[in-house]
Amino acid sequence: MADHIHPVFERMLTRSEREQRLGQRAKVLWFTGLSGSGKSTVAIAVEHALFEAGHFAQLLDGDNIRSGINNNLGFSLEDRRENVRRIAEVAKLYKESGVITLCSFISPTREIREMARQIIGPEDFLEVFVDTPLDVCESRDVKGLYAKARRGEIKGFTGIDSPYEAPEQPFLHLKTEDAAPEESAGQVITAVNSIIQLK
Amino acid sequence: MADHIHPVFERMLTRSEREQRLGQRAKVLWFTGLSGSGKSTVAIAVEHALFEAGHFAQLLDGDNIRSGINNNLGFSLEDRRENVRRIAEVAKLYKESGVITLCSFISPTREIREMARQIIGPEDFLEVFVDTPLDVCESRDVKGLYAKARRGEIKGFTGIDSPYEAPEQPFLHLKTEDAAPEESAGQVITAVNSIIQLK
Repeated sequence: MADHIHPVFERMLTRSEREQRLGQRAKVLWFTGLSGSGKSTVAIAVEHALFEAGHFAQLLDGDNIRSGINNNLGFSLEDRRENVRRIAEVAKLYKESGVITLCSFISPTREIREMARQIIGPEDFLEVFVDTPLDVCESRDVKGLYAKARRGEIKGFTGIDSPYEAPEQPFLHLKTEDAAPEESAGQVITAVNSIIQLK
Repeated sequence: MADHIHPVFERMLTRSEREQRLGQRAKVLWFTGLSGSGKSTVAIAVEHALFEAGHFAQLLDGDNIRSGINNNLGFSLEDRRENVRRIAEVAKLYKESGVITLCSFISPTREIREMARQIIGPEDFLEVFVDTPLDVCESRDVKGLYAKARRGEIKGFTGIDSPYEAPEQPFLHLKTEDAAPEESAGQVITAVNSIIQLK
């Protein structure tokens, strides 16, 4: 019985073993930008492009996070921090699994993105600034949120009555105003291609 | 510019596309049992065995969850529920990514495991009861927790002053007392093998 105390394997599979299996280096691409900037649209295009190139990536965004692990959080400052903290922790788990992880969240302040960077690990955190002017985002207003914010029906809306702090030195600065999403996605792929290759 | 409103791809990659790529069906194996029952030891052996068989699996256990996404939770009843809720949500994300997910947590009550089952989806939730008698777990006491619980230094310790409710109809019932961990792992592999194969 004493043998049972000692695990057959002392440890879980390592990130390196998983990366070898998937044929890639895992990184976290953190897409930040205003609501309606096209973050998720670009990230979805990147996910598909990576997949077609033989990689294995996973997008985390409002659709699969707010409805699940973060479904008990609101929009207070404290809850927004906890929202991003949990996202960063999930992204870290995925990265340790060897998966290229794409996170698409407004994450409006430098402080909140710095927290994510520290949780994920600075060497694995690649910040992608989806830079779309406020007036363009507001004119799209796909979900009608800007209209509501202007009418005061939503408080603390980023860009309207809550600040968005642009990244100072992002890994990649995408100016989307005159670019189709697939062009922006192409810029991302070009920028990460050498980083995600196994040497 | 109007084109930018419509995503190039309407949706993220599907679970099915990911399963095809990884060559497997994704399921969640939920290992439940007392502290010291050998849950994680067996689950680690299963993770390695699946990997060697060409599958892609990820173990979630106290080591990577309590230190990360659940590092702001204590051991109150409310926090224990939130602990398992978040684990189940992470497991669901992994499953949707096409990854075979192994969860190793005491998860002592039927109600708490039922919550996990509902979050993950009953058809994807495979409960593995790691059935090791309390006296065996206590005699191992790898982390000295049972001794502390007996001295009253830990309150609400499962098996001592907090109940463990054994699963009534688990997917798999492992009696580990007279089995080496690799034997138990072999039983798991045999039980799931046909389920995780792509048809």
